[in-house]
Amino acid sequence: MKSYTNYILFDENSIYYECGYSNDNSVFLRLGRESFFFTDSRYLLEAKLALDKNINLIITKELAKEIKKTIKKSKINSIVLDPNEITLNFYNQIFSKLKIKVIEKINFSKLKRIIKNDSEIKLIKKASNIAKKGFKKFEEYLFSKGFGKSEIELAFVLKKYITKKEKYNLSFEPIVAINQNAALPHAKPSKTKFKKNDLILIDAGIKYKRYCSDRTVTLGNKSSDFYQREQKFNKKLYQKVYDIVYSAQQKAIEAVKPGIKASKIDKIAREYIDKKGFGKYFVHSTGHGVGLDIHELPIISAKSNEIIKENMVFTIEPGIYLPNKFGVRIEDKVVVTKNSFEIL
Amino acid sequence: MKSYTNYILFDENSIYYECGYSNDNSVFLRLGRESFFFTDSRYLLEAKLALDKNINLIITKELAKEIKKTIKKSKINSIVLDPNEITLNFYNQIFSKLKIKVIEKINFSKLKRIIKNDSEIKLIKKASNIAKKGFKKFEEYLFSKGFGKSEIELAFVLKKYITKKEKYNLSFEPIVAINQNAALPHAKPSKTKFKKNDLILIDAGIKYKRYCSDRTVTLGNKSSDFYQREQKFNKKLYQKVYDIVYSAQQKAIEAVKPGIKASKIDKIAREYIDKKGFGKYFVHSTGHGVGLDIHELPIISAKSNEIIKENMVFTIEPGIYLPNKFGVRIEDKVVVTKNSFEIL
Repeated sequence: MKSYTNYILFDENSIYYECGYSNDNSVFLRLGRESFFFTDSRYLLEAKLALDKNINLIITKELAKEIKKTIKKSKINSIVLDPNEITLNFYNQIFSKLKIKVIEKINFSKLKRIIKNDSEIKLIKKASNIAKKGFKKFEEYLFSKGFGKSEIELAFVLKKYITKKEKYNLSFEPIVAINQNAALPHAKPSKTKFKKNDLILIDAGIKYKRYCSDRTVTLGNKSSDFYQREQKFNKKLYQKVYDIVYSAQQKAIEAVKPGIKASKIDKIAREYIDKKGFGKYFVHSTGHGVGLDIHELPIISAKSNEIIKENMVFTIEPGIYLPNKFGVRIEDKVVVTKNSFEIL
Repeated sequence: MKSYTNYILFDENSIYYECGYSNDNSVFLRLGRESFFFTDSRYLLEAKLALDKNINLIITKELAKEIKKTIKKSKINSIVLDPNEITLNFYNQIFSKLKIKVIEKINFSKLKRIIKNDSEIKLIKKASNIAKKGFKKFEEYLFSKGFGKSEIELAFVLKKYITKKEKYNLSFEPIVAINQNAALPHAKPSKTKFKKNDLILIDAGIKYKRYCSDRTVTLGNKSSDFYQREQKFNKKLYQKVYDIVYSAQQKAIEAVKPGIKASKIDKIAREYIDKKGFGKYFVHSTGHGVGLDIHELPIISAKSNEIIKENMVFTIEPGIYLPNKFGVRIEDKVVVTKNSFEIL
C-alpha cells in the first residue's frame, strides 16, 4: 500500500489506531512530519495525558475552523481522507474554498489495520476469553432457568454475563433468536419465549481495551462441550442443517493459511452448503475482519480480491436460513499463523 | 418554513418522522407527489407491513445506485438534503454526475419536528413516566445497597431499572458520577465507589415507541420527594451550590411560555448563577429539544434565535461544575402549553 504523508482521520477507531487515544469529538491530522490532534476542552486533561508529546494538541470549540486554518497555513498540495469517515457538512466546513486536492481513499485506515500486530492479537484473544466465560454462564442459565423467558429477557442476562455487569462494553447489540427468528440474520430480541426442544441462536461479543470479540453459537440442548461446536438437537431437521453448517465452517477454517485467497475460503464453505442443497439459504458472506471495529478487513466473500496473510484476524461464519422455520449460524474468529491458523 | 417538494432523508429518525417506519439501512425520497422508500431484502416484510400503500417500496442491495436511477428518471431540477445526515461517500455515490442542484439545509428534518403534536407529547410523557419509576427504584437501591458500589456497578443497576431489563431502549448511555467525577459534564462511569456523604449525579433516559426521555438528578441523601428537586446534602458547599442551581432552574422553567426567546430563558438561568458568583462554572447551554432524537431543536442558549412556541418540548438543565471538586446539574423536560408550561 502506498504510504501518504498528508492525511486526516475522523473516525474514532482510525484515530485511536494512529495515536493511541481518541474520543467522540476528535480529529487527527498528519501533515508530513507534523501531527495534530483536535478536540474540545472537555477532553483536555485525558488528551494531554494520553498523547505523545510530539503531537500538537489543539483545544477548540470549533474543530472545522481550526483544522481549516492549520491546513491552510501548512501550504500542502493534497491530502488523503476516507469519505466514509466524514459527513458532507463537516467536509464542506473544512474543505470549501481550500485550494488543495482531496484524495478520497475508501478504507484508508482499515487497510492499514488489516494485519494485526502481536499485542493487538493478544487483546482480541483476551476479549474472546472474557466473552467465552460469559457465554458458558449463559448456557448454564439457559437450560436451567431460561425456559419460559423471552428473547428480550435472555438478552438481558446474556449481556450481564458477557460484560461482567458492564465492566466491559459490548462489540454490538447481541442477537438472541429462537426458531423462526433465527432465520433472520440480523434478528432483534423479541417477546418470543424459549421452550424445550427449541433452537436458539446467540451472536455476541465484548471489547477489551477497545478490541472486539465476536462469536455465534446455535444450540438446542446443554452441550457437553459448548465451545467445540458439536451440538445435539431434538428435532431431526435442526440437526441436519446444523451438521451441514458445522462441516462447512470446519472446512473453511481448515483452509485458512497465508497465500490463500479470501474468495477461496468463501467458496469452500459455499460449495459445501450448495452441494447439500441449501446454497440459496446461505445469504451472506463467509466472514469479516475483526479488530478495533467489529467489521474490518479482510472480507471473506466471493467478490473479495484479498490474499490472506499472516496475522490477519477474521470470522468464519457460514449460515443457513430457512424463512419462517429456523436458522443456523456458527461463527468463530481465526488468526492467521505462519503456516496455518489458530482459533481465538 | 418554506416547504420543499423534492427532498431526500438519510437519518433513521428523520425517515421515521416522515413515514412512520425506518431501519438502519433505509432512505426516504420525496419527488413532488411521489414517495420512495429504499431498503434491502432483510427488511422487506416489516417495511411492507409498516409503509403506506402509496409509498413506492424499492428493495435493493445497492441503495445509492437505485436512488440515483430514480432521481435521474424523475427529471427534477433540485433536491433538498441535510448535509449532516449523509457521508461524503454516500453523497458522491448518489450525486456525482447527476445534473441537479442539491440544496443543503442543515436541520431540515429537525426544523419540521420542532413543534410536537399531541400524540408525540404523549409518547414523551410516557417515556418520562417509565424512567421516573426506574429512577425511584434506583434511589432506593442507592441508599440501601449502593454504598461501596462503583459508578460502573451503579450504572448497571440504574439501566436495569429504567429499561425494565431491556424492555425499553436507553435514550443514551447514562451518567453516574460521584463527587469530582460529577464536575465533568459528560463523565463516563468509573471505578469510583459511592460512600456516605458523597454527592452523586445521575443523568439518564429511555425511549418509548422511539420517543426519548431525559432527566438529571443530583443527590446526597435519600430524598423524601425525589422528583420535587429539593435535596439535602451533608456538606455545606454541596448544599450551597445545589440550591443555586435549583433556583436557577426554577426561574428558567417558570419563564417558559409561548413568545419568549429561547435565549432569554438561557439568560435567566445564567444571570442568576452569575450573580451568585459561579457564572464561569456553568459551561454549557441551558437546554435542548427532545423528541425522536435526544438532542433536537430548540436549543436553549445565548446564541439561539428561536422564539418559543406552544408544543415545543425541551430540557432546562443548568449546572455548576467545580473542577476536581464536584458538579451539580438538575434537568427536567418541559412542554410549552398555550399560556405557560408543563413539566413532563
